[in-house]
Amino acid sequence: MRAVDIIAKKREGETLTREEINFFVQGFTRGEIADYQAAAWAMAVYLRGMTNEETTALTLAMAHSGQVLDLSAIAPRVLDKHSSGGVGDKTTLVVAPLVASLGLPVGKMSGRGLGFSGGTLDKLEAIPGFRADLTTAEFTTQLENYGIVVSGQTHDLAPADGKLYALRDVTATVSSLPLIASSIMSKKIAAGANIIVLDVKVGRGAFMKTEAEATALAELMVKIGRLAGRRIAAVISDMNQPLGNAVGNALEVIEAIETLKGHGPAEFVEHCLSVAAQMLLLADAARAEADALAQLRAALADGRALKKFGAWIDAQGGAARVVDDYALLPRARIVEEIVAPQDGFIAGINAEQVGLTVVDLGGGRAKKGDTIDHAVGVVFQPKVGARVARGDPLFTLHANDRAKFDAAKARLLAAYTFSPHAPALVELIHKVVR
Amino acid sequence: MRAVDIIAKKREGETLTREEINFFVQGFTRGEIADYQAAAWAMAVYLRGMTNEETTALTLAMAHSGQVLDLSAIAPRVLDKHSSGGVGDKTTLVVAPLVASLGLPVGKMSGRGLGFSGGTLDKLEAIPGFRADLTTAEFTTQLENYGIVVSGQTHDLAPADGKLYALRDVTATVSSLPLIASSIMSKKIAAGANIIVLDVKVGRGAFMKTEAEATALAELMVKIGRLAGRRIAAVISDMNQPLGNAVGNALEVIEAIETLKGHGPAEFVEHCLSVAAQMLLLADAARAEADALAQLRAALADGRALKKFGAWIDAQGGAARVVDDYALLPRARIVEEIVAPQDGFIAGINAEQVGLTVVDLGGGRAKKGDTIDHAVGVVFQPKVGARVARGDPLFTLHANDRAKFDAAKARLLAAYTFSPHAPALVELIHKVVR
Repeated sequence: MRAVDIIAKKREGETLTREEINFFVQGFTRGEIADYQAAAWAMAVYLRGMTNEETTALTLAMAHSGQVLDLSAIAPRVLDKHSSGGVGDKTTLVVAPLVASLGLPVGKMSGRGLGFSGGTLDKLEAIPGFRADLTTAEFTTQLENYGIVVSGQTHDLAPADGKLYALRDVTATVSSLPLIASSIMSKKIAAGANIIVLDVKVGRGAFMKTEAEATALAELMVKIGRLAGRRIAAVISDMNQPLGNAVGNALEVIEAIETLKGHGPAEFVEHCLSVAAQMLLLADAARAEADALAQLRAALADGRALKKFGAWIDAQGGAARVVDDYALLPRARIVEEIVAPQDGFIAGINAEQVGLTVVDLGGGRAKKGDTIDHAVGVVFQPKVGARVARGDPLFTLHANDRAKFDAAKARLLAAYTFSPHAPALVELIHKVVR
Repeated sequence: MRAVDIIAKKREGETLTREEINFFVQGFTRGEIADYQAAAWAMAVYLRGMTNEETTALTLAMAHSGQVLDLSAIAPRVLDKHSSGGVGDKTTLVVAPLVASLGLPVGKMSGRGLGFSGGTLDKLEAIPGFRADLTTAEFTTQLENYGIVVSGQTHDLAPADGKLYALRDVTATVSSLPLIASSIMSKKIAAGANIIVLDVKVGRGAFMKTEAEATALAELMVKIGRLAGRRIAAVISDMNQPLGNAVGNALEVIEAIETLKGHGPAEFVEHCLSVAAQMLLLADAARAEADALAQLRAALADGRALKKFGAWIDAQGGAARVVDDYALLPRARIVEEIVAPQDGFIAGINAEQVGLTVVDLGGGRAKKGDTIDHAVGVVFQPKVGARVARGDPLFTLHANDRAKFDAAKARLLAAYTFSPHAPALVELIHKVVR
């Protein structure tokens, strides 16, 4: 088998065999197949596509390019959730302890923010002492002892994906459905959970801009997961305006804790419950969605979920007292309320613009490796659909630099659309793909 | 401007501007644009194509990535011919001195053989002492003093093409019309001739297998040449059976000299005259094809072309006495005649199989850098269309190794098709593209 023949076959739009895909991924991981060959191949995949079977083979080959965690000795079922990336998406901070508080083990490897999209690890690291860089042994030990762990990917997790992703980023081959799906799923499969709920975001603050794209990606990932022997479902959720009120790392931690205390914004609570309910259903821990939702609401109401959150943070070295004392979190020097410049209904808050504004404030990364200011961000109140009068509160801006504050204020105001009429409201959960 | 944006634009099938193509080629030549980016770009070009304007811009960018020879101080018109590569193609050895003997300066940079296709420089180097590695200064001086020079490409000629070609070879992006055309034409333009006749081969022993492909390539190269200010035409010629009788370096030198002496195989003579006539017409050295042919036949008949050949070989350090003494050329130890295994008409001699057989004998290269045995090869007599009886001579095989001889004999006999009926004969010159 030769790399050049495999490239030519895909170039001609033919279907690669599992053996060919394994040969290519293994050779690439070992450095025997050059970057330039993988780049040509990726472009051929981009333009010619892949069948579901090819994409599954690619996913499994990348998953098995490094260590694949076997968590079966810890629990017969380990749950994971994964978001395709959005703005204000602190769902994991609520859903993981909420589900774990019902006795279902949640073991998740998570990522960092890049561009407009935030990252769960960055949010958790706003809590003093929190460690996101667990070793594989620490990951499994904590899962066994606490039934909940969220950590960064270990270096040996799907190294082929890491290498291919870096290459795709500079060769204009990122936005390919089979390449996106196999990238996400290879990491999910290597991380060891056997029950996976995907949260595929769609809209202006998501990588998938249309429902058709999001549905195609969700269906593909669900098929791959099932072919790989996982129980899996995907929720397709709206990401036109930010999720919840808070955007910015420490501010989102506060909102997550408030949600666990029963005071979360209604729309964000609904989102967390929807995702968590799918996890319960896949785990056979609920007979139907109504049953799942009832169990989850009870765990929120009686403090079990909040208690689990504290135990989790503590187990990973974080200051669990943060639950009762938000002053432990970093706070920005400049915190000011911005008011509505006009009367009208809020018809839109462009989530992508919001995400990019928080990056400019220092709360996200323009490029890999940038350091993060966990304190900065914005809290929206009210949100889309509300009627405001000129001078009413619109959002609170948290910044550590006056010039950045001014730029962010202008950019955020420009992200709003006002309308004299009440806007049609979009359902938060578009659909569930099973 | 960013390389990744240019790749993405081509990936989407859009038309690149001249500025974008120049940026990409210059960056790639300087090593600022990585091999993997050029590979992804080449695959996008392969699958999305290029307009004639884009291909011309690419050609000129690659031509100007190094030195572009200006031969105008030597002569207002310098002629070149270029073959797309075939089996038994010793046309340059005849046409260059033939045209030069009429007072028209011929300055050609030529290549080496690879795979089934032979190379002019390898053939010339069968002559003891012949130097194919002239410097640029030697190239121009010889052109000025002798009116004829054929040498290898200098290192600084279209370096972007050399770099891109090496990359295409290992990324399955060779057989792309705009990439092939721009590769050939960038070298032709950099080499300085302003009158160019292309000999585009079509058939089993050529890179273009169908007349449609060959015509498309010829038309594209003619357009590029014209847009670059060259006088240019393309002959499309048959390469299903080997050209002439001899295949193998020293054997082809002998056939070329015999042709210059007026004893060449009729079909090969016709081919040389057709190519040379196009050169005369483009140079305004003949009023019409009949006039051109008459001049060329006269130069063959009265020995002017042969004399020019001798002067040329001598000027480049070769043993010009070879003209009268073929014993100066290397000769194989095993030379045996092979006879027809059956009665019938010769309906086909698969040129690609012949070319690969000569490579196996040691007379060509399986990969770049392989050394060559100039002595080995085969002389076919009779050829396609002839009627033979079992036991009649079919070909003479020249080898330096008994095992290789046996393998070549079997492979060559398998390359024949016999028929009880006279086969329809293919015209040698399919068409001329102007």
